[in-house]
Amino acid sequence: MSDLRQKALDYHAFPKPGKISVELTTQAETVEHLALAYSPGVAEPVKEIAADPENAYKYTIKGNLVAVISNGTAILGLGNLGPLASKPVMEGKSLLFKRFAGIDSIDIEVQHDSVQEFIDTVANISISFDGINLEDIKAPECFEIEQALIERCDIPVFHDDQHGTAIVTAAGMLNALEIQGKTLSDAKIVCLGAGAAAVACMDMLVTCGAKRHNIFMLDSKGVIHSERENLPAHKQKFANDTDKRTLEDAIDGADAFLGVSGANLLSVEALRKMAPNPVIFACANPDPEIKPALAKAEREDLIIATGRSDYPNQVNNVLCFPFIFRGALDVRATVINDAMKVAAVEAIRQLAKEEVPHEVLAAAHVNHLEFGKDYIIPKPMDPRLCRRVATAVAQAAVDSGVSKINCLPVNYLAELPA
Amino acid sequence: MSDLRQKALDYHAFPKPGKISVELTTQAETVEHLALAYSPGVAEPVKEIAADPENAYKYTIKGNLVAVISNGTAILGLGNLGPLASKPVMEGKSLLFKRFAGIDSIDIEVQHDSVQEFIDTVANISISFDGINLEDIKAPECFEIEQALIERCDIPVFHDDQHGTAIVTAAGMLNALEIQGKTLSDAKIVCLGAGAAAVACMDMLVTCGAKRHNIFMLDSKGVIHSERENLPAHKQKFANDTDKRTLEDAIDGADAFLGVSGANLLSVEALRKMAPNPVIFACANPDPEIKPALAKAEREDLIIATGRSDYPNQVNNVLCFPFIFRGALDVRATVINDAMKVAAVEAIRQLAKEEVPHEVLAAAHVNHLEFGKDYIIPKPMDPRLCRRVATAVAQAAVDSGVSKINCLPVNYLAELPA
Repeated sequence: MSDLRQKALDYHAFPKPGKISVELTTQAETVEHLALAYSPGVAEPVKEIAADPENAYKYTIKGNLVAVISNGTAILGLGNLGPLASKPVMEGKSLLFKRFAGIDSIDIEVQHDSVQEFIDTVANISISFDGINLEDIKAPECFEIEQALIERCDIPVFHDDQHGTAIVTAAGMLNALEIQGKTLSDAKIVCLGAGAAAVACMDMLVTCGAKRHNIFMLDSKGVIHSERENLPAHKQKFANDTDKRTLEDAIDGADAFLGVSGANLLSVEALRKMAPNPVIFACANPDPEIKPALAKAEREDLIIATGRSDYPNQVNNVLCFPFIFRGALDVRATVINDAMKVAAVEAIRQLAKEEVPHEVLAAAHVNHLEFGKDYIIPKPMDPRLCRRVATAVAQAAVDSGVSKINCLPVNYLAELPA
Repeated sequence: MSDLRQKALDYHAFPKPGKISVELTTQAETVEHLALAYSPGVAEPVKEIAADPENAYKYTIKGNLVAVISNGTAILGLGNLGPLASKPVMEGKSLLFKRFAGIDSIDIEVQHDSVQEFIDTVANISISFDGINLEDIKAPECFEIEQALIERCDIPVFHDDQHGTAIVTAAGMLNALEIQGKTLSDAKIVCLGAGAAAVACMDMLVTCGAKRHNIFMLDSKGVIHSERENLPAHKQKFANDTDKRTLEDAIDGADAFLGVSGANLLSVEALRKMAPNPVIFACANPDPEIKPALAKAEREDLIIATGRSDYPNQVNNVLCFPFIFRGALDVRATVINDAMKVAAVEAIRQLAKEEVPHEVLAAAHVNHLEFGKDYIIPKPMDPRLCRRVATAVAQAAVDSGVSKINCLPVNYLAELPA
């Protein structure tokens, strides 16, 4: 780890501090260029936009600009370290937006005294952008914040820790269940963890067909049921009134386990109690709820996914967020709705079933990948993701009536990053 | 103008909408790179910054990042067209920051209901940046906004329409008076206009040695004096209690005229009444208070400067703002104080007295430039400006005790844009 630590610090410090920069896309060499870029020429696009706000998409970067916004209250798995400490993560997100989807993106860290002040601040600057990616904001505040901003802004607002995680998890879970000969509508699911990501994952699975009465969600006090006192709203909706109270109770006969909790919280004993051909998503980072080698040694019939790149089946948000925003921006969607999320799930899911090109194998340092127990979701470096996911999302936005542009541009596919 | 209009619109629309983009400064090609840029490697700089906020300057873009912020209430000379319409101007400012001083900069447009809400919004996001350039905010709100943000933020906050204009004006005015054999402390000055730029210019001239009793400021109602009713504070401080009431009264015997008002407001008759060897700064844009050809035809003894690039002696903010921020950032100044502003005035002023390199002549499309009536301030494309102004400002910040780094970096000069 010490080696990774120094490499990571050096990566952030050199060639200069940070990971992104702002560059010019136009010529600015001569006095004549400057007369177009600034005074007096710049008055012309100003007047055009004043006459019709739509012209902002023609003459400014707005239509390709996403803000990555955090208050640093839930940074990675490190907790509430404040807005400034979140900056490397937010810059990293901006890097990924550009690298994978050609989206210009800038990070904004917000200091605030109240949830309302955070909401007001973000809403007040939202006109500068065409999308807002909320990041590393703790629960339960993140739910109120996202909902309020969706209502106040006419651009997509998307809390990636919730929905990005949920979309990739759903894609992987649907494929894993299929391989195991199961369906989401029948699957008994245990969710260990009741934070923002856990709730969003279960919401997404319900949207994709899972049944609430088949879901058992657990927080640090055990299974969530309606007799529990002081349950916040986001937990209440997953209250399941049975006599099951512990993880041992809930996991008995379960088809699927999703862990968004902590290292080594799924024991071998618990694993033994699951139904035949179980699916384990052990997504705690950096150390999963159960180590894949240990789990596989215990049960040959399982499929296991983690958050780590050094095991098969990595659940990685980068499979989704650059592309769901790419699709949303390209048809000027005003929100990212369930139809668009489901379209992203399906596009990611289907890609895993296709033949894997040589370059993807090379990037993943493997000789072979084929849809099956060790390959249920695409690799993050798969260059086909952008076109597949963005076009599916864009089409879903158009079909569900939330886009301002009601057809895909003629040269849409050709212009997407390959 | 129709030709410029279409050229300006095309410049903003192609090769893609807008003038700036966000790019990567690190490698992000392989799985290994992404493990450093994002999870799990990014946790390392996060922890370093949580332990010591200073590390944000080592591992993120913060130390080279300036926000260009507007509410669009006073866009160029076009008035209050709202925040979205201001976006091309703000992007243009970001372009100039990068082009001239290597500063990464992003524009933020703010919607708000009250001055307090604007202040709160900007203060809440200020931790993301190391400097804030306020732009195109109308008076008198701009004064309250800037003052409140200077007090609340520990990074430089600088309303360029005020202070950038004032610094360049002061540099040019000092040189022009010198050429005319006059001094600022004796000069009788008429200021036509009493908005943010006019007040800032007069403040700066007073800081540089002008006497308040020698300054006559006029708004649309005439000379400002203390008998006038409902004078706002920013005008009150330039009340001058004489029997002069009109421009005709005030200009009689004046040594210098600064116009930040409107086209053709200085008549030939008024010009005739000025003292021998007068100095005219006719800065209304795009059409000055008096046309240079007309003025020169009337009085051979004058020096005239305008805001336009097609006449000699252009008063252009780009001579100052990229470099005053460059100097401030490089020694981590917490404010831009009077000492730094005066240092910028002196550096700009002195550069005009030096021999002009061939490349500057070529960029200006002239064969010869020499300190004198038609060359009182440097040209905007002069590549020496960055080093001269930034180093002077940085040194002034250190000397006046407002810098967090108390010496210039060893290789400071070498690293500045040439």
